[in-house]
Amino acid sequence: MKPQPAPSEFDLIRHYMAADTAQRSDVTLGIGDDCALLDIPAGQQLAVSMDTLVAGRHFIPTVDPITLGHKALAVNLSDLAAMGATPAWATLSLTLPAADTAWQTWLGQFMVGFRALAQHYQVQLVGGDTTRGPLSITVQVHGFVPQGQALRRDTAVVGDQIYVSGTLGDAGLALLHQKGQNILTETVYTLVAERLNRPTPRIALGQALRSLANAAIDISDGLGADISHLCTASGVGAQLQAQQLPLTPAVQTYIDQTADWALPVTTGDDYELVFTLPRAHQHLVLQAARSVAVPIHCIGHITAEPELQIQLPDGSIQPLGAGYDHFNGTL
Amino acid sequence: MKPQPAPSEFDLIRHYMAADTAQRSDVTLGIGDDCALLDIPAGQQLAVSMDTLVAGRHFIPTVDPITLGHKALAVNLSDLAAMGATPAWATLSLTLPAADTAWQTWLGQFMVGFRALAQHYQVQLVGGDTTRGPLSITVQVHGFVPQGQALRRDTAVVGDQIYVSGTLGDAGLALLHQKGQNILTETVYTLVAERLNRPTPRIALGQALRSLANAAIDISDGLGADISHLCTASGVGAQLQAQQLPLTPAVQTYIDQTADWALPVTTGDDYELVFTLPRAHQHLVLQAARSVAVPIHCIGHITAEPELQIQLPDGSIQPLGAGYDHFNGTL
Repeated sequence: MKPQPAPSEFDLIRHYMAADTAQRSDVTLGIGDDCALLDIPAGQQLAVSMDTLVAGRHFIPTVDPITLGHKALAVNLSDLAAMGATPAWATLSLTLPAADTAWQTWLGQFMVGFRALAQHYQVQLVGGDTTRGPLSITVQVHGFVPQGQALRRDTAVVGDQIYVSGTLGDAGLALLHQKGQNILTETVYTLVAERLNRPTPRIALGQALRSLANAAIDISDGLGADISHLCTASGVGAQLQAQQLPLTPAVQTYIDQTADWALPVTTGDDYELVFTLPRAHQHLVLQAARSVAVPIHCIGHITAEPELQIQLPDGSIQPLGAGYDHFNGTL
Repeated sequence: MKPQPAPSEFDLIRHYMAADTAQRSDVTLGIGDDCALLDIPAGQQLAVSMDTLVAGRHFIPTVDPITLGHKALAVNLSDLAAMGATPAWATLSLTLPAADTAWQTWLGQFMVGFRALAQHYQVQLVGGDTTRGPLSITVQVHGFVPQGQALRRDTAVVGDQIYVSGTLGDAGLALLHQKGQNILTETVYTLVAERLNRPTPRIALGQALRSLANAAIDISDGLGADISHLCTASGVGAQLQAQQLPLTPAVQTYIDQTADWALPVTTGDDYELVFTLPRAHQHLVLQAARSVAVPIHCIGHITAEPELQIQLPDGSIQPLGAGYDHFNGTL
């Protein structure tokens, strides 16, 4: 028998990437030509965001490729959510160490995770690249938002209430456990690891907030760091109440045991939305969040003074710590 | 003196990436929020293309960062050219090994090259990412093409003439020289290395061909490989005439000395356009090419039989070889 030649770039693309993500009528040309050709509906703006995940920095090289495929798309969709945009298309550049059978299997599984989430949000994979090199993934997502209605980070207003979706610190707790710094029970670790590995982009909530919130951002670098970005962009400050932070029993137990109240504030990867709104919109926003089945909690308010502070349960006021920096941080 | 802390991801982005590429009125939000917000003119389709360049595979790690910045954008603009699109925006993800002074300088120089080309084509950098890891660059370009007028690779017609812009094999010759397989004089090497390092995207030619050519593709993987992609997509074949291939004196001399007629057919990185047209459009196409000051040459024709062949100067007919494969190839 003749040995099979290693599959070419084009074979790999054809086999694994051209497969069935959502098929959309606004895609004239998808994968396969020099460019994808795409139609934007009248009255909509295009929202785009690009993120790169590098092995050993943003994920453990041995992570399950299915969950990595999910996460690579999810963290980008979270950026669309933070703008109130509706997802439409994605491009994907994969750099893989080899094209042997093991990496073909890896790629197939990665695409299972990617495709499942893409199908869920009707996102079509329309282009990208495959190259050989150190394992790395770049995704760009493209979505629509009605002209002038995007949520931005630079439009928070002094006196706004600050809300956050979901719960905080679960992904950070899972990461601590993985690094051997905290030992959770198997059951608890499984729960929080799901938050780290398979974040849920808050797409429906973002859309529901378009006419109600003054400003929004998603939490990728940590609550403190991302509120800091929002406040800097808006020229304001913030004061948070530690007791109002929404925590799962796992994170609450960890804090009770360690007194490390900073975990939910400084660790990243939550992919929840932080948003600010005038108090007058409170009732409507709570109603909107209920209608999309996403819990939200008021955790503080926007201040005129540019400081970022958090009031601890003992009444003391501390500066808000920074979060994860993709350049200086490590896994 | 206190040591300076390493600049954060945000510092790096602010300093080097948010700088002055073209400023466009169709960009509502550029770098700095979760997404860029962009406007597509009525009647235009969006064309997008993404390419990744990995150190040690697509470029030598010690390459001048200014030329690398040019090339990273140029190879993507070449994909827009092949569709007949007008460039508008770019996103850029840079993975750098460190954030120390040396890499800050490197990043600054990379952006000099990137920005100069972006300015030339009125391309605005609207987003991206910076991460730490093995050196790698991903660029996505976005352009406009009037509804239904994009050049495609799957629409070549039997009997079409095949044209190519510029000259072939210069970049391949420079690469051969770099690998020590061919010794050029300093002067000749400087000439061909310019073609390898600073390719010219054929934007104006692509636009001029929109109503005249039946099909088009850009040459990134090599003339043979890219014509093969075009023919496969169109369900046709091609026959080329080796004597018609446009060659610089440098490449002609190399072939005369080595009898390696395959160099201009099999080496990549030319970033010229190959396009097919009905004979009736010949006069108009030559006129259009003159009007944008790009030389073009007829090098063969499209055949019904799916084979790809080239007739050599001695009259013999050979199969067309394959070109550079980003996954299996090496520098």
